[in-house]
Amino acid sequence: MKLADLGEFGFIERIRGAVARSEGTGVRLGIGDDCAVLELPPGQVLLTSTDLLIEEIHFRSDWSDWRALGSKCVSVNVSDVAAMGGSPRHLYLGLAIPGTMAMEDLDAFLEGFLEAAAGYGAVLVGGDTCRSPGPLMISVTVEGAAPTEQVVTRGGAGLGDSIYVSGTLGDSALALQRLQADRPVTVELADRHHRPQARVALGRALAEAQLPSAMIDVSDGVLADLGHILEASAVGARLEQALFPLSSGFSQAMDEEPSLFELALSGGEDYELLFTVPADKEHVLAELIADVPVTRIGTVTEAEQGFLLADQAGQVRPVKAKGFNHFAG
Amino acid sequence: MKLADLGEFGFIERIRGAVARSEGTGVRLGIGDDCAVLELPPGQVLLTSTDLLIEEIHFRSDWSDWRALGSKCVSVNVSDVAAMGGSPRHLYLGLAIPGTMAMEDLDAFLEGFLEAAAGYGAVLVGGDTCRSPGPLMISVTVEGAAPTEQVVTRGGAGLGDSIYVSGTLGDSALALQRLQADRPVTVELADRHHRPQARVALGRALAEAQLPSAMIDVSDGVLADLGHILEASAVGARLEQALFPLSSGFSQAMDEEPSLFELALSGGEDYELLFTVPADKEHVLAELIADVPVTRIGTVTEAEQGFLLADQAGQVRPVKAKGFNHFAG
Repeated sequence: MKLADLGEFGFIERIRGAVARSEGTGVRLGIGDDCAVLELPPGQVLLTSTDLLIEEIHFRSDWSDWRALGSKCVSVNVSDVAAMGGSPRHLYLGLAIPGTMAMEDLDAFLEGFLEAAAGYGAVLVGGDTCRSPGPLMISVTVEGAAPTEQVVTRGGAGLGDSIYVSGTLGDSALALQRLQADRPVTVELADRHHRPQARVALGRALAEAQLPSAMIDVSDGVLADLGHILEASAVGARLEQALFPLSSGFSQAMDEEPSLFELALSGGEDYELLFTVPADKEHVLAELIADVPVTRIGTVTEAEQGFLLADQAGQVRPVKAKGFNHFAG
Repeated sequence: MKLADLGEFGFIERIRGAVARSEGTGVRLGIGDDCAVLELPPGQVLLTSTDLLIEEIHFRSDWSDWRALGSKCVSVNVSDVAAMGGSPRHLYLGLAIPGTMAMEDLDAFLEGFLEAAAGYGAVLVGGDTCRSPGPLMISVTVEGAAPTEQVVTRGGAGLGDSIYVSGTLGDSALALQRLQADRPVTVELADRHHRPQARVALGRALAEAQLPSAMIDVSDGVLADLGHILEASAVGARLEQALFPLSSGFSQAMDEEPSLFELALSGGEDYELLFTVPADKEHVLAELIADVPVTRIGTVTEAEQGFLLADQAGQVRPVKAKGFNHFAG
């Protein structure tokens, strides 16, 4: 079966047929009209984010199986809703598809996409498909919701707040570096790159307990993303390198090559939650977290102190918040 | 100024600075966090649609000035909200930008985009930008709202309803055909292709008066789009060629080349509203419409009668609902 035989409307019908029904997401009308028609829970605000994923820029099809890529597209996008403390509800998928793409690859992509969506409690309710004269280009939009008073922005970090991060840092960037260098990579590390998980349950639990004063997901690297919090909150920070949570695979690699620590600072695509917690609420955090480890990695300081990093030996140096710049030379 | 010098975050700040504040669109938080945070008016449902616009597929930069293209991206997307009877509120813009694109072209695109958005009462509240290794790729998502009981779907057309369309048909397709053939085209016709207008006010007025039993916007051509209504409503239709509203420019062209009528049937991108109205409500329609002409072009019939077209001479032939198929050979 080729895409050209199926046709645009046949392809859309195929997607529509594969979408699982999902209760409780307020879908009055999904795929198949000019717009999706949706309800929000009373007293909740709408949280919306959109992401592009472009072949050769964000992914290479020869590194990533299509099912994993479908899943990753959802996780990357849903992670933005998690970072606001919300629950994802609706997804929209735009696909510009090269003529060379095989139908079975598209099907695998969609399977991964829909499976991940269902795992997060979200439903695919709309999209657009067309031919691409160049690379495969994917756009994903997510709509979520959260009770108005529980939304967590980047702008609330306060002096003396502790800085926390979930999971471990740098694994995805390490996997990518090895893939780019054609070096072997363990399944665990590769999965962190190909199958990241959005921390939706953690984000909701934190927001519900109203613990974080500010929150963001780590997509551009912890320095860049903490930089966004510091800028939005008009504060400084001091991070302790010794406290950084690293996976055993990452630590082993660092034993041979200590400079890899840079990847835990500035590598992207961890999709962990990075958040600040006022000192008087930290005891609640300890009780709250069961499934996902969170680690304190530093402290919010006055803006004048800037952004500092203390290394293992206690040496303190100023850091520049640098992330991935898509337009850099 | 080059995009590479400005950088990704500089470019986003530039867009953020250019977005006009808009009252009454429920924006609690726009560009600059993980998600936009938005409120819906009480008692209204959310209407969301997403569109892709790909260079070489949907537009050619040498035919279209960038400002017009920015405006068209908004209109095309907002037209889907108009077709449900809703008001557009929030827009999201994804841009995958080739390295060769000039900053002044991007600025012109954004100016056109933001100007059109403001004209429809909608605000740009989020997006994503990255480099494209191929063509310029644009994704636009719109969120609108409408009172729950006023939403108009494709699925409500009933036996004996009259079929109406706003404005005139075929102009955009005629302009495109002439541009493709390198033939001269009048400003009026070219504007219908480059600067289509979404019929938001008309859609709202119709929905508020609860006149249409079904509605869609004409993006793939009136046959294809009416076909969607017939399918969703499980009815047939008979269209009268003699009733089709044609612009003077289109009529003149048809005088020389009668076969051009095909473009009024199957040409796309008119972005007019196509809707059905029960007979007992038609007198209200006559009172309602002031600014935008609407024209009765046919009647809803039983599904068994199929989809028929009566030509000028009264000859009736069955038609196939054919629109633009992005994946056709």
